[in-house]
Amino acid sequence: MTRPDGRRPDQLRPVTITRNWLDHAAGSVLVEFGRTRVLCAASASVGVPRWRKDSGLGWVTAEYAMLPSSTHTRSDRESVKGRIGGRTHEISRLIGRSLRAAIDYKALGENTIVLDCDVLQADGGTRTAAITGAYVALADAVAHLRAKGVLSGEPLPRSVAAVSVGIVDGEPCLDLPYEEDVRADTDMNVVMTGDGAFVEIQGTAEEAPFDRSELDALLSLAEKGCADLTAIQQESLA
Amino acid sequence: MTRPDGRRPDQLRPVTITRNWLDHAAGSVLVEFGRTRVLCAASASVGVPRWRKDSGLGWVTAEYAMLPSSTHTRSDRESVKGRIGGRTHEISRLIGRSLRAAIDYKALGENTIVLDCDVLQADGGTRTAAITGAYVALADAVAHLRAKGVLSGEPLPRSVAAVSVGIVDGEPCLDLPYEEDVRADTDMNVVMTGDGAFVEIQGTAEEAPFDRSELDALLSLAEKGCADLTAIQQESLA
Amino acid sequence: MTRPDGRRPDQLRPVTITRNWLDHAAGSVLVEFGRTRVLCAASASVGVPRWRKDSGLGWVTAEYAMLPSSTHTRSDRESVKGRIGGRTHEISRLIGRSLRAAIDYKALGENTIVLDCDVLQADGGTRTAAITGAYVALADAVAHLRAKGVLSGEPLPRSVAAVSVGIVDGEPCLDLPYEEDVRADTDMNVVMTGDGAFVEIQGTAEEAPFDRSELDALLSLAEKGCADLTAIQQESLA
Amino acid sequence: MTRPDGRRPDQLRPVTITRNWLDHAAGSVLVEFGRTRVLCAASASVGVPRWRKDSGLGWVTAEYAMLPSSTHTRSDRESVKGRIGGRTHEISRLIGRSLRAAIDYKALGENTIVLDCDVLQADGGTRTAAITGAYVALADAVAHLRAKGVLSGEPLPRSVAAVSVGIVDGEPCLDLPYEEDVRADTDMNVVMTGDGAFVEIQGTAEEAPFDRSELDALLSLAEKGCADLTAIQQESLA
Amino acid sequence: MTRPDGRRPDQLRPVTITRNWLDHAAGSVLVEFGRTRVLCAASASVGVPRWRKDSGLGWVTAEYAMLPSSTHTRSDRESVKGRIGGRTHEISRLIGRSLRAAIDYKALGENTIVLDCDVLQADGGTRTAAITGAYVALADAVAHLRAKGVLSGEPLPRSVAAVSVGIVDGEPCLDLPYEEDVRADTDMNVVMTGDGAFVEIQGTAEEAPFDRSELDALLSLAEKGCADLTAIQQESLA
Amino acid sequence: MTRPDGRRPDQLRPVTITRNWLDHAAGSVLVEFGRTRVLCAASASVGVPRWRKDSGLGWVTAEYAMLPSSTHTRSDRESVKGRIGGRTHEISRLIGRSLRAAIDYKALGENTIVLDCDVLQADGGTRTAAITGAYVALADAVAHLRAKGVLSGEPLPRSVAAVSVGIVDGEPCLDLPYEEDVRADTDMNVVMTGDGAFVEIQGTAEEAPFDRSELDALLSLAEKGCADLTAIQQESLA
Repeated sequence: MTRPDGRRPDQLRPVTITRNWLDHAAGSVLVEFGRTRVLCAASASVGVPRWRKDSGLGWVTAEYAMLPSSTHTRSDRESVKGRIGGRTHEISRLIGRSLRAAIDYKALGENTIVLDCDVLQADGGTRTAAITGAYVALADAVAHLRAKGVLSGEPLPRSVAAVSVGIVDGEPCLDLPYEEDVRADTDMNVVMTGDGAFVEIQGTAEEAPFDRSELDALLSLAEKGCADLTAIQQESLA
Repeated sequence: MTRPDGRRPDQLRPVTITRNWLDHAAGSVLVEFGRTRVLCAASASVGVPRWRKDSGLGWVTAEYAMLPSSTHTRSDRESVKGRIGGRTHEISRLIGRSLRAAIDYKALGENTIVLDCDVLQADGGTRTAAITGAYVALADAVAHLRAKGVLSGEPLPRSVAAVSVGIVDGEPCLDLPYEEDVRADTDMNVVMTGDGAFVEIQGTAEEAPFDRSELDALLSLAEKGCADLTAIQQESLA
Repeated sequence: MTRPDGRRPDQLRPVTITRNWLDHAAGSVLVEFGRTRVLCAASASVGVPRWRKDSGLGWVTAEYAMLPSSTHTRSDRESVKGRIGGRTHEISRLIGRSLRAAIDYKALGENTIVLDCDVLQADGGTRTAAITGAYVALADAVAHLRAKGVLSGEPLPRSVAAVSVGIVDGEPCLDLPYEEDVRADTDMNVVMTGDGAFVEIQGTAEEAPFDRSELDALLSLAEKGCADLTAIQQESLA
Repeated sequence: MTRPDGRRPDQLRPVTITRNWLDHAAGSVLVEFGRTRVLCAASASVGVPRWRKDSGLGWVTAEYAMLPSSTHTRSDRESVKGRIGGRTHEISRLIGRSLRAAIDYKALGENTIVLDCDVLQADGGTRTAAITGAYVALADAVAHLRAKGVLSGEPLPRSVAAVSVGIVDGEPCLDLPYEEDVRADTDMNVVMTGDGAFVEIQGTAEEAPFDRSELDALLSLAEKGCADLTAIQQESLA
Repeated sequence: MTRPDGRRPDQLRPVTITRNWLDHAAGSVLVEFGRTRVLCAASASVGVPRWRKDSGLGWVTAEYAMLPSSTHTRSDRESVKGRIGGRTHEISRLIGRSLRAAIDYKALGENTIVLDCDVLQADGGTRTAAITGAYVALADAVAHLRAKGVLSGEPLPRSVAAVSVGIVDGEPCLDLPYEEDVRADTDMNVVMTGDGAFVEIQGTAEEAPFDRSELDALLSLAEKGCADLTAIQQESLA
Repeated sequence: MTRPDGRRPDQLRPVTITRNWLDHAAGSVLVEFGRTRVLCAASASVGVPRWRKDSGLGWVTAEYAMLPSSTHTRSDRESVKGRIGGRTHEISRLIGRSLRAAIDYKALGENTIVLDCDVLQADGGTRTAAITGAYVALADAVAHLRAKGVLSGEPLPRSVAAVSVGIVDGEPCLDLPYEEDVRADTDMNVVMTGDGAFVEIQGTAEEAPFDRSELDALLSLAEKGCADLTAIQQESLA
């Protein structure tokens, strides 16, 4: 099988991570997975939400959104509709949970970091690009806090990265662009730590239920992809 | 290890499915997984949403909600807050996708079935109980449509059931009640067809990332649990 | 005249009150007026709304809602619509006022009780069933608070019950099911105390204005119905 | 007993009805019950809501609102809060039902009349003033439609008027201003037709439940008050 | 050129300012520019918004709205739509900024004045009438605060007034009614202080862009109109 | 006077216009005024809003928004707040009106172009950068429509550009960055056509009212700035 863009089944799209893309945020990254382009900004502030006050623990949360012009056909703004859609909610929550898996709340202290992941252009895999980029923005924000002297320990004991996998025309493939995504029978997003443990698995049978051996093949592909992304993150932060 | 309620790690809570719990809906089921109690109602109507008109295909969708008094501490009503929360959105979407995996849209014809899953009492596993019960309500609604003579083929080629699994105190366990759920390191919801294929996998490392072997153990537990639930569904529908 | 279900004009439908229907709430009742089925849950919490703080007085409030599948034809969820409808607002306020008439705020102390009345199945008279059942749930919640030792006096000096009356085909009738309700010229809901005083009267000429003698006949029927309901409440609480 | 403004218990406040207060609406009235001042405007348009199309029947509906500066202490705008409160919903629905009792839908034909009742100054009895004034605005709008030749029959076979009654310091009183309203044990709003039949009764025991004889006294007072208001309406329209 | 109502191009419509139109507000004015009629109410309260606390400075804000029946064709209520439209937001902000230009925050002390400008009838120029009337209501509210002894200095060092100007059929005209407004090529609203300085200029080329000399002519007309309005305000307050 | 960044009072910040920044939109531009960075995307679609159907005329509208991370301190998302703020509304309307001044609706035919202006980084002048960039995106979208053969005439008879001017420390200055903007006494945004006519003027006395001669100086500066921007637009489109 040849993929539309000539990649091998276990090959990522070209991935670029541009740090410090913004002037104001504590950390900011423009991450690109092929034509998918997400702006990840980490804003740090002193204090935590009310329900966490005086716990000595920090907090990390995320918000995901797509620009109206990011999609093939313009999408309506959620601010204009007056409510956030289910998909947006779901992805914001996924990103938040994933990044919180990288954090040691105690070492962060009572500081909050908000990760804004805004999709500037969408071509499949926006949530996995967002998580991968947001980790780098988070690392920069932590460095920013450390430079300000507000941290005592190391709040980032591990890294996280994420990738999509799917079964396209019967073959398990890594990092699907939109064109493959709409044709996939099964679609899975996997978030892993830099040392190869799982943080999140979300697999959906879009067209046909999948059996255990297909599932195993997808998980192995995802392990490979997340390892590659971890290397790219480390290089970017070096 | 002994579980708080004395169950073996691979054992379901007592599951009961009461059909025809309501007088008006085409199908209605009160499903209980231990103390978790969900009312699943399937309402059938002629026609499909606008974007699907004249396709010859049917539609199935779901809405999940919790009564304010269903939880240990009363929760605020989403209708009063004026917006649906992310968790509700996420679960409604999961139930809808899961049930659609059971449906042959063509055989359903241009009819819509809405599955309302209202949690009357919550004690862990509300979304998996909802899916398991909603399948039975859906089967009753399909029988209702068949009796009315509006179906030509068989719109339910397969069944679906769902169960939660998790790692509690280091041990993989099936069907977690609230008490175990809050202590679990990892929490996974798995939806499967009656013949043992996967429809949805949603796994989250709540406290600690999990490795591949833990993941494999959880998946095997889930396969066992879904098979047991399928038998209970079949018995209920017999 | 014969009523569709064979009742005399001044006869209630079969009424059942099942206490402790839920595990978590301080008081919970499944009340049934014929096929109308309402789940009434009373949640108690320490403290009162801000505008009542440091008054030494308690507070009681109510929220009414219908499950989408409770009606003959499925109704849309108010949480999905993003706003509460006028009818829901109106009934929630009626239930709250009615139950507050039973309460001695001083003896309750600075505690709040919320009464959630969720209609599981609707067949006419949902608001009157809700008030009648909510009183029993409230009594159980008060007993729960008393057992916890937080009350000094008796916060429930009187009971309340409610019933609908209407003129159907020219004849005044008690406790209308849906079938009669849609045909009624006049529809009235009456809330009374256990010792026969009026708390609320809401009468509406649906089809034809009514004269003073018809009004008098309806009020007498309601007095009889509320007395019967009071007896059923007392028996249930005995 | 002397009332604060020197009235007899069965006496209305000075009532004035100023027709044609606006230039654009089909009918418009500034109605004053003492210091209570409500602007009632009737807007007529061709056509009816979708659910009533091709029925040959007309429709009448009402919206009630208070200006922020109409109350003793400024109230927040419901447009700014983004939702309509329960009280507003309740009163809008009451006004709509009351005016619809005056209408013959068939003679109105497929036309819609919206009655906007905006409280410019509130001093008790705003809803009853609104209904009383809205009837006159409605009569003017019907005359406007008749002049345009779109009506065949007589869409206003009867008039409606409304008044509040209450028990203040143990004595039944007619048409309560704010000062008496807050002190009343019982508060009742009664809507009647011009020929003395009841359209709506809404009575609430604010402080103490009331007995049948008190209720009878209040109803007789309301009959007297509505008859007086009917005379004032007729004079105004003459 | 003759204007539809016979005015000279630099002539205002008949302007009337009726003070104390309401009983409750600290200041209230019914302002009329021809058939445009706006109720301006100033409500004073102790304290300032949170972000301004302990600054020693006061605050002034404004809310503008139109009654549904104020326009030629009935407009929907923003409270019913559940959101405030862009035009309403824009005008509320303009009125607030304009009145704040008249205020010395320090002399006002930590008091807040809200200006509610509700359009009872619209015939062009509602925002300029609102500003002109709101100034008078504000002056009355300040006098009210002074009488209560809560002010030390003079919080109103200058007055403001506003007028619309536009190019109609090629000729610059002052104070456009609706009929001219819809035909205007250019439409400008100008807010000025009583001593002839500019506070706000908002000019829009509705049909055709305008050149510098047209702009200069419009500005001169506005200077003349604001001076006339200032005289009327002073007379009203004398 | 020396400006913080060394510019002359009548000098623009470095302006760059990058066309085709996105792959999907009919026209897309990243416009930079110094550190202010706005993504302007023009989406074209067949058809017009309902109220304009069968008029033969096209439609152009705009939506403006700021990314949460674009500002010095993170701002909350309007989609999360569930409502669009007044400032956003105001600027979206300004951009829409400004671009419509460049359009010949008849030559556009019944097509709609939506201009999305999303601020990626804010450093003063976001609305003027948005208008200036959106014109170029609009020109590209029109070229795109022309290439598809759906246009008969020339829908863009003129160009528009916009700039801010203000009085900073007593001196009129062109194109204010945030640092100057917060210190300005007066702030004015001016939109002009490529041939030097005015489309919009919005001037506000932030701190002190301004006199006619200051106003004249600001207008002259704006004329100079818009002419410079027009040249940059033409170069970019050449």
